Amino acid sequence: MGAAMDKFESEHSQPISWHRVLQAVRRYGPLARVDLGSILELSPATISSITGDLLREGYIREVADSDLHGVESGRGRGRPKVLIELAPDAACMIAVKLSINRIEVARGDFAGGVGPVTSRSLNTLELSGAALIAALGDLIAAEIAAIPASVGRIIGIGIAVQGLIHKTETLVWSPALSLRNFNIAAPLAARFGRPVIAMNDADCIALAIQQRGDLQPVENLAVVMLGTGVGMGLILGGKLHAASSGAGAEFGHTKYQIDGPLCHCGRRGCIESFVGDYALYRDARSMLDLPNTDALHPSEEQMQALVDLAESGHNVAVSLFKQAGRALGYGLSNLIALISPDLILITGSGVRGYRQMEPEMRRALDEALVDTLLAQTEIRPYPWDEDLTLRGIVLQVLEVGT
Amino acid sequence: MGAAMDKFESEHSQPISWHRVLQAVRRYGPLARVDLGSILELSPATISSITGDLLREGYIREVADSDLHGVESGRGRGRPKVLIELAPDAACMIAVKLSINRIEVARGDFAGGVGPVTSRSLNTLELSGAALIAALGDLIAAEIAAIPASVGRIIGIGIAVQGLIHKTETLVWSPALSLRNFNIAAPLAARFGRPVIAMNDADCIALAIQQRGDLQPVENLAVVMLGTGVGMGLILGGKLHAASSGAGAEFGHTKYQIDGPLCHCGRRGCIESFVGDYALYRDARSMLDLPNTDALHPSEEQMQALVDLAESGHNVAVSLFKQAGRALGYGLSNLIALISPDLILITGSGVRGYRQMEPEMRRALDEALVDTLLAQTEIRPYPWDEDLTLRGIVLQVLEVGT
Repeated sequence: MGAAMDKFESEHSQPISWHRVLQAVRRYGPLARVDLGSILELSPATISSITGDLLREGYIREVADSDLHGVESGRGRGRPKVLIELAPDAACMIAVKLSINRIEVARGDFAGGVGPVTSRSLNTLELSGAALIAALGDLIAAEIAAIPASVGRIIGIGIAVQGLIHKTETLVWSPALSLRNFNIAAPLAARFGRPVIAMNDADCIALAIQQRGDLQPVENLAVVMLGTGVGMGLILGGKLHAASSGAGAEFGHTKYQIDGPLCHCGRRGCIESFVGDYALYRDARSMLDLPNTDALHPSEEQMQALVDLAESGHNVAVSLFKQAGRALGYGLSNLIALISPDLILITGSGVRGYRQMEPEMRRALDEALVDTLLAQTEIRPYPWDEDLTLRGIVLQVLEVGT
Repeated sequence: MGAAMDKFESEHSQPISWHRVLQAVRRYGPLARVDLGSILELSPATISSITGDLLREGYIREVADSDLHGVESGRGRGRPKVLIELAPDAACMIAVKLSINRIEVARGDFAGGVGPVTSRSLNTLELSGAALIAALGDLIAAEIAAIPASVGRIIGIGIAVQGLIHKTETLVWSPALSLRNFNIAAPLAARFGRPVIAMNDADCIALAIQQRGDLQPVENLAVVMLGTGVGMGLILGGKLHAASSGAGAEFGHTKYQIDGPLCHCGRRGCIESFVGDYALYRDARSMLDLPNTDALHPSEEQMQALVDLAESGHNVAVSLFKQAGRALGYGLSNLIALISPDLILITGSGVRGYRQMEPEMRRALDEALVDTLLAQTEIRPYPWDEDLTLRGIVLQVLEVGT
């Protein structure tokens, strides 16, 4: 994160305390100056001076408490408190999601909102580096051309990708691409004259879920993403865990069974090789009469058909989800032993099979861990009703860029 | 950590910014006010005001740059810079290490130093709760009685223990004790009228190593402790990873082999059941003619004899360390996949066998992880020439208490 931060810092040389104030307002706002002071451990005088500057520059705006809580403000607590919130149009950024055979682009606003999404289908696995950059660049250019004059400067561009990303710019490996060790950020930064960061998609989703407001805040949160692959985003100490290398949270490639089945990654016995869509469908096809498919990427319909078979009690399908649940449980037991998250959320499209996996997952956890360790962590499914990837990358660009 | 922090906060109601300034000076000092300002992202005026208060209260003192770098100060860079450092006697704390059959106590100073250690041998596994508290209390009382009048107030008491600790006060489980779910902090806090925190010993050591100054600073550091058991302390994002529950970093109880040998914890196939001293010695005794022993706690001499056998090429001993190395390697592969630490240090008394384990450990890592993931993390042994546990608990009491 350090390098990306430096890029943004040199971009606009405002005092560094602004950064902390804006982050806090984005996260906890709207809020009163006095609460802002407690959160940031800054004196009322310092807060007053910084918020004065930010108001003048148009980054924040004042809103009366009564605008928000009309009823409560009448309770005779004196004049309504003035709260501070971000001005959504103070600045913007372009958010991109690159996944297998699809690119999605949207504009993010200064308060963390995501605008309408434009998407394009293409065969990502066949793309050369130049073709990928051209495809991304054209969509980004169109999005930039559509920004109204009333919106402030473009802070930067964020790209969410499944896979391993080094120092927020190099795609070491992604299942969506045949390219390896490809610097996706530099050519786009050169074309648009803006900082560009790339980020793992599961990290984006973890960040978005953490800040979505429908969860009790927890210090340590793991979001496990089930789907074609098995990914994870980790929030530790309230912040996205960013390995200095950009790697990390490769939950899908922790081991369930040494010398087990071959995984997409080329190694054996990874959790993903038991729990990933491709693994379930590969095994299912060797025993069940299922529609033919690109075995690497079974479709949503095909996977749902497999879940339906299990739900109806078909032995082979049931046993596949059982085995997946057992592998998932042992994988989670290692995660709990190492980090003891307060909460583990299981989500992603693969959560469709959660009910079929859960009993065996719980059994494996009981087998693997002493009760006192197990009791520290709550595990539950999180509905996959909306793709939060773009929202997450918007939050991250704002986090490092303002 | 939250609860402990609250206790300390209510203890002395100084402005909260003092806390951040003192922490920074302890960590990075001696340093100039201007550098302190950059580290904390505070304005020169704010820094000047806070350091003025801290000087008046006697928590910090000024030292001329030339006192530290006599030669360099003559280089005509104008008047010597004034640096700030902590006043060691501004306050103190009592540091305790509770391990199997031994209690050690020392006084820690305000700058993080540890004084002479008093130790007492006793059969810890036979202790009742009351007897444990009495034994600890008497040693602490003697240490407090010996504090010179010139030393400031006692900030608190810190207790380092092997095992699982809940919310810095409850010993859920420790291999040193037969007691379970025992609140070790409350009765001592009541007796001495000071805040008491308990902390996992591996966490203490990780903290001490991180701040020892012989390492390049890294954001993400895992310190794996080999010995009777196998523990770990995790520094993530530059800070000790504290699971909200107080648990976590139970590296020894991640799995190498489902349905493998029985572990101390009562579950099967944990890393510790292959790598811990007791596991190595248990297996060795079934095949080698070795001195009889308390099988749960082989002595340093006995373990060294086993290492010597392997070093001399004895087949059975060699193969035991090979197997341990393989289990360790697979355990580390899961740690790397999940967190990608910049650096993993292998230490603890069990590092005596590292040379025998390393080749198979590296082979297992190669088998388990794709090169790009493996390349993110450096793994090396760290000499176990000094027990850093007390130093770590002193740093932690200072961290939460000032």
